[in-house]
Amino acid sequence: MHEIRKDPILNRWVIIASERSRRPMDYVAVPELASGGMCPFCRGNEEHTPPEVLVTAEPGRAPNGPGWRVRVVPNKFPALRMEGELGARREGIFERMHAIGAHEVVIESPDHGVQLASMELEHVDEVIGAYVERIAALSGDPRLRYILVFKNHGAEAGATLEHAHTQIVATPVVPKRVVEEIEGTKRHYQQHGRCVFCDMVEQERRAGARIVNENADFVALVPFAARFPYETWILPRRHAARFELLDAAGVRSFGAILRDALRRLDVVLVGPAFNYVLHTAPTGTDGVPDAYHWHLEIMPKVTKVAGFEWGSGFYINPTPPEYAAELLRDVQTG
Amino acid sequence: MHEIRKDPILNRWVIIASERSRRPMDYVAVPELASGGMCPFCRGNEEHTPPEVLVTAEPGRAPNGPGWRVRVVPNKFPALRMEGELGARREGIFERMHAIGAHEVVIESPDHGVQLASMELEHVDEVIGAYVERIAALSGDPRLRYILVFKNHGAEAGATLEHAHTQIVATPVVPKRVVEEIEGTKRHYQQHGRCVFCDMVEQERRAGARIVNENADFVALVPFAARFPYETWILPRRHAARFELLDAAGVRSFGAILRDALRRLDVVLVGPAFNYVLHTAPTGTDGVPDAYHWHLEIMPKVTKVAGFEWGSGFYINPTPPEYAAELLRDVQTG
Repeated sequence: MHEIRKDPILNRWVIIASERSRRPMDYVAVPELASGGMCPFCRGNEEHTPPEVLVTAEPGRAPNGPGWRVRVVPNKFPALRMEGELGARREGIFERMHAIGAHEVVIESPDHGVQLASMELEHVDEVIGAYVERIAALSGDPRLRYILVFKNHGAEAGATLEHAHTQIVATPVVPKRVVEEIEGTKRHYQQHGRCVFCDMVEQERRAGARIVNENADFVALVPFAARFPYETWILPRRHAARFELLDAAGVRSFGAILRDALRRLDVVLVGPAFNYVLHTAPTGTDGVPDAYHWHLEIMPKVTKVAGFEWGSGFYINPTPPEYAAELLRDVQTG
Repeated sequence: MHEIRKDPILNRWVIIASERSRRPMDYVAVPELASGGMCPFCRGNEEHTPPEVLVTAEPGRAPNGPGWRVRVVPNKFPALRMEGELGARREGIFERMHAIGAHEVVIESPDHGVQLASMELEHVDEVIGAYVERIAALSGDPRLRYILVFKNHGAEAGATLEHAHTQIVATPVVPKRVVEEIEGTKRHYQQHGRCVFCDMVEQERRAGARIVNENADFVALVPFAARFPYETWILPRRHAARFELLDAAGVRSFGAILRDALRRLDVVLVGPAFNYVLHTAPTGTDGVPDAYHWHLEIMPKVTKVAGFEWGSGFYINPTPPEYAAELLRDVQTG
């Protein structure tokens, strides 16, 4: 079984493969495109994935057959598994535990060429709704402390399959970045009595220079200290710690601004590779401040991240956020 | 002038280009290889770089001419500049300052094809010695809080020139990763009264499984919670906070184990792209604990880092560190 190790100096967790037979080049996080072009995510190839855990489909459809619109399946090569105990243990300065958790794939459409940016909004609803449902379901397992939803789109962003999909990784520890966001949120709340993300939304809407788009519920903006060119965040305008508490109207509204943001990036950067990562509160209520504010971060991959960034957590962004926002704002979307 | 911005939630700094005319694809951190194959770092092309700030050369050589072995020049397209005031200012929740600092390039050899792994040790000494001298020199400027030394080798690691070089970036703020290491070091010291890196060296030497090589002064190992396949750290065996206090014998000893580690990676991964980053204490003494322990982190680029890692600070490493160390240890080096 894989294990999870903690860096003894930083609060940084790493899932370590325990099979020494797996050489670096053999490893893929999602199933690879089989030779001959068979795509395991396409309509008709359902038997090439593990059985589905969630689906939106026509009434009367047989499980794991065609006739679906969105399908969630366990990852065939999961980084974490649900069976077993955590078995957390310490060896001198080191801490490790078994890699207990879930690793699922949201297949966003049965059609190979369809992407979120090109879907009907009703279909986007079902993708976002699948995120909501799976986070809620996985949050019920007391061993799991965080449910991470992220998308790799394009080879440069680490995708090994081009068919539109999102990954869900449920982990027994809270990832470092989220811990840091919670600490930053608490610090601001103690100093100012307000949520720092709410303050950000207010200040950015007043200034306007970094706003990409907004609707009644959400704002899309290029953050003040964007790490990457054309990095775009989507934040709820009203305070909310948990993405998974979105109701149907919220799902629709979020899907609309997400699709809009992806379309704008497609136009300005001509179909870029990108990652997006949902930042929502950890499961349970221990240590989760009311001041946490969920959001989605979209990171286009237009420059290589080099040693400077990796070694320091100090980034160089060659594109001023105000300039990126202006270009994205000026796109005419349909 | 470029500016430096701080993320209002995390302690994360970003250098933001302020010229809106610079589109993402136009930007390079180091001069690009000119068409026709002219390399600005090669012997005879000295006029294509800014004037040198440090050089090792034959006696009587004219400045900025040939006859050098290692040459340090300001970056032609620097991310930070020395002229001006910091001008730190706050706008609501945001903080920014001018991008004051230095951005230099250590050209490691006048010969295009030579790399650290293939150099004579006497030449490696001069490269490492240049790091020491430049860190010491730049540390004298009270505006500069950190001197970051890093190498991008290979296009996959972000290098835009293949001629062997190292970059030095001096910044008016301490990078997030170093702040976190100092915090982790302090925490361990408060709990145990010892340096966590010293404890790591002792525990790893006793266990042996993750040791790659060692000499009288240094140990090379694959860290317990390695983020990347074949990630390798070099640490001084005796406690030392500052790299730049190395004496001539220390420079020789460090150069020898560094060259050895790079040769082992070259054999096992067949000439991989990699980054390495020197982690040394911030300049000055404010807030720098005696317990900080300098080291060098080598990060081969054999897998793509995807959204999961970016969004979470939670890594998946497909190669067990013990397996990587075994393969690296078993290499026969000359």
